[in-house]
Amino acid sequence: MGQFEFSILSRDSTTAARAGAFSTPHGSFRTPAFMPVGTRATVKGLLPRDLREAGTEILLANTYHLALRPGAEVVRDLGGLHAVMAWDGPILTDSGGFQVFSLATLCRISDDGVEFRSHVDGAPLVMTPESCMEIQANLGADIIMALDQCPPYPAARPQVAEATERTLRWAARCAQAQKNPDRQALFPIVQGGEFDDLRAECARRLVAEVPSPGYAIGGVSVGEPHELMMRAVEAAIVHLPADRPRYLMGVGQPRDVLGAVRRGVDLFDCVLPTRNGRNASAFTFSGTVRLRNLRHERDRGPIETGCDCPACRHFSRGAIRHYFQVGEMLGPILVSLHNVRFFARFFEAMRQAIAAGGFDKFEQDFLKTVDSVA
Amino acid sequence: MGQFEFSILSRDSTTAARAGAFSTPHGSFRTPAFMPVGTRATVKGLLPRDLREAGTEILLANTYHLALRPGAEVVRDLGGLHAVMAWDGPILTDSGGFQVFSLATLCRISDDGVEFRSHVDGAPLVMTPESCMEIQANLGADIIMALDQCPPYPAARPQVAEATERTLRWAARCAQAQKNPDRQALFPIVQGGEFDDLRAECARRLVAEVPSPGYAIGGVSVGEPHELMMRAVEAAIVHLPADRPRYLMGVGQPRDVLGAVRRGVDLFDCVLPTRNGRNASAFTFSGTVRLRNLRHERDRGPIETGCDCPACRHFSRGAIRHYFQVGEMLGPILVSLHNVRFFARFFEAMRQAIAAGGFDKFEQDFLKTVDSVA
Repeated sequence: MGQFEFSILSRDSTTAARAGAFSTPHGSFRTPAFMPVGTRATVKGLLPRDLREAGTEILLANTYHLALRPGAEVVRDLGGLHAVMAWDGPILTDSGGFQVFSLATLCRISDDGVEFRSHVDGAPLVMTPESCMEIQANLGADIIMALDQCPPYPAARPQVAEATERTLRWAARCAQAQKNPDRQALFPIVQGGEFDDLRAECARRLVAEVPSPGYAIGGVSVGEPHELMMRAVEAAIVHLPADRPRYLMGVGQPRDVLGAVRRGVDLFDCVLPTRNGRNASAFTFSGTVRLRNLRHERDRGPIETGCDCPACRHFSRGAIRHYFQVGEMLGPILVSLHNVRFFARFFEAMRQAIAAGGFDKFEQDFLKTVDSVA
Repeated sequence: MGQFEFSILSRDSTTAARAGAFSTPHGSFRTPAFMPVGTRATVKGLLPRDLREAGTEILLANTYHLALRPGAEVVRDLGGLHAVMAWDGPILTDSGGFQVFSLATLCRISDDGVEFRSHVDGAPLVMTPESCMEIQANLGADIIMALDQCPPYPAARPQVAEATERTLRWAARCAQAQKNPDRQALFPIVQGGEFDDLRAECARRLVAEVPSPGYAIGGVSVGEPHELMMRAVEAAIVHLPADRPRYLMGVGQPRDVLGAVRRGVDLFDCVLPTRNGRNASAFTFSGTVRLRNLRHERDRGPIETGCDCPACRHFSRGAIRHYFQVGEMLGPILVSLHNVRFFARFFEAMRQAIAAGGFDKFEQDFLKTVDSVA
C-alpha cells in the first residue's frame, strides 16, 4: 500500500472511537475526518484558501458529475483534479454509483455495468467497474471508490441481496482494473441495506476478496432512521480490519457522526455544511441559527460567539440576514464558511475527546446542547 | 473641511491628468481611484479581505438600494455601513437620485423632491434633499452625494435645463441639511446633459453656491457616445476647483476612464468588473477574455499571464470555464476577483504614468492593445 499509511494515535477508553491519521500522496489528514463536498470540483462558493483556513484537510468530489461535465479526460488534460480545484491536499472521489441510481434516468443494470441517461442532457451512458476505474484514474484523486449498487430504502431483501452480490463482484473487478494503486487507494463499499447478515457477509467477503487500504460503508443516509443507520454500521464494522480507515458515506448530521465515531468510523462526507449554508441555516455548538429570522435584523452579534471563522470575526447576524433577504451571494458564502469551520471544530473536538479518553461524555454533552436536526 | 484633505502629488507633463491622495475619516485613497460597486453593502461575491488584497482602497454603496433594504435605520443600528460591510476603509454612497430615475416606477418630481414607488414591492416613497441627507447620515459613508435630477439621454434642452436648475437648488438644500460635515464630505453633482453651456453654468454655480471638498460630474454613462461624455467632462471640469477631487459617476470602460483622467478626473465607480465577471468576461491588458469560449476547455493557462490575482495564481482557464458551464458560484467569484484586480492594476499603472509624466503615451499604448469594448 506504500503511500497509504493509517496510524491510530489514540483510542477512546469506553467506546470503539479512535483517532489517527491517514497519509496520501498529497499529505495526510487526521481522523475522524470530515470531507466537505466539492461535487463539481468546487466546494460551492468557497476558495481553497478559505477551506484550508477553516481547518479542512481533505475534500470529496463526484465522479458522476465530473464525468458528465467537463468530462474525465478534460480534467486529466487540465492536470487532474488537484490542479483543477487548486487544492494540493488529499482528495477522494466517490464512484458515481450513488448518483447513477439517484439522479440518472432510465437506469438499466446488468452484471456488466449500468446503462443510464445523463440527468443533464439525456445522453445515453454506460458505467462499468472498468470504466469507473478509468474515469477515476483520469480524475486523479488520492482515494477512489469501487463501483457499487446502492439499493433504495426501503427495499425488499431479495433486491438488496442481489445488489450486494453485484457490489462484491464489481469491487473485485475494480481492484483488477485499477490503474494506479501506488498513487490511488481504492476503497470498496459495503452494501446490504438494513439486513444485518447481508452487511456482515458483504464486509467479510470484501475484506477477504478485495484487500484494500480502507473500506467504506455505503447505502446509508438514504432516508432510514438513525437507529437503522447505526445497526448497519455495527453489522459491518466488526468485520472490517481495525488497522484500516472506515468511511461512512454521505453522513454528516452531528448525531449520526457521533454514533458512527463511537462505533469506530473514521471518515465522513456530507453536503450539509454548504447546503444548509446556502439556505441561511448555521450550525453552532448551541444549535441551529436560521439567519433569515426577523429577530436577527438589528443584531450586531456574530453567528456564534467565540467562533473564529471569517463570517463570525467580521460580520453581524444583521448584515448576513440582509444579504439573504436581498439575494446577495455573500450570504451563502459567509454561512457556508461558518458551517465548514463548524464541522472542522466539531471533528477537532471529537479527536481531542478521544485522545482524552472521554468520547462518551463528549457525545452526551454535545447532544444535550445541540439541536442536531439542522 | 478638516479630515478631507486632497493632496496632488504629481501632474502629467502634457495632459491635465494628476495623481494624488484624498484623506477621509477611514483612511486615504490614492487618485485616480476606482471604486468597485457594493450596491447592497457587498461587492457581489467578494469578501472584504479579497478586495483589500486586490488593491481596492475605496468602495461605493447605493443609497437607494440600502434605503429600501434593509433600511438606513437598520444599517445605523448595525453600526453603520463600515460595520455592515466589514470594510474599515473609505466608503462613498451615491445619492440614490440616479436609481430613483432609472429603477423606481411612477416617479413624480416636484421642487420638494421625488415621489416614487419601490422597484422591490411597489411601496410609495418620497426622497427630498433633506431625507437624502438623513439617509446618508444613517448609512455613515465617508463621502456622500447631493440629491440630483439625472435626465435621460437623449433629452430636449428645456427638460435638461429644468433638471439642472433643480439639481442646483437641491444641492444647496443638501448642504444646508447635511448632518455630519466633519465626518462626511458632501459632493454636489454637475448635471447639464449634452449641453456644454448648461454643464458649465451648473459647475460654476455649484462651486460658487455650494462650497464642497469635492465635486462630481453626473448624468454620464447613460448611453451617450464616448465623444459626448468627454465633451461633458470638458465643459464642466474647467469650472471645478483644481485643488478638489473630481468624480465622474458610473464610468468604468477603460477608454472612457483614460479620456477622463487625461482631462483631470480623479475618481470613478463602475459595476463592470463584477458584472462582467459574473458573465465570464475578463478584462486583461491584451483585451477581453470570454471564459465560456470552447477554446479554453483544456487550457491550463491563467486568465492573464503575469496577473497576481487569486484566480490567475491558482486556477486555469479550463477550470474557470467548467465552473461557468455548470453554473458554479466559483466562476463568477474568480472572474470578479480577477477584474477587480485588473482595475486596481490599471489605475496603479495610470498613477505611475502620471508620476512619470508619460500619461499620453500610456493611454495610446493601452488603447492599441486593449479591446476596450468589454
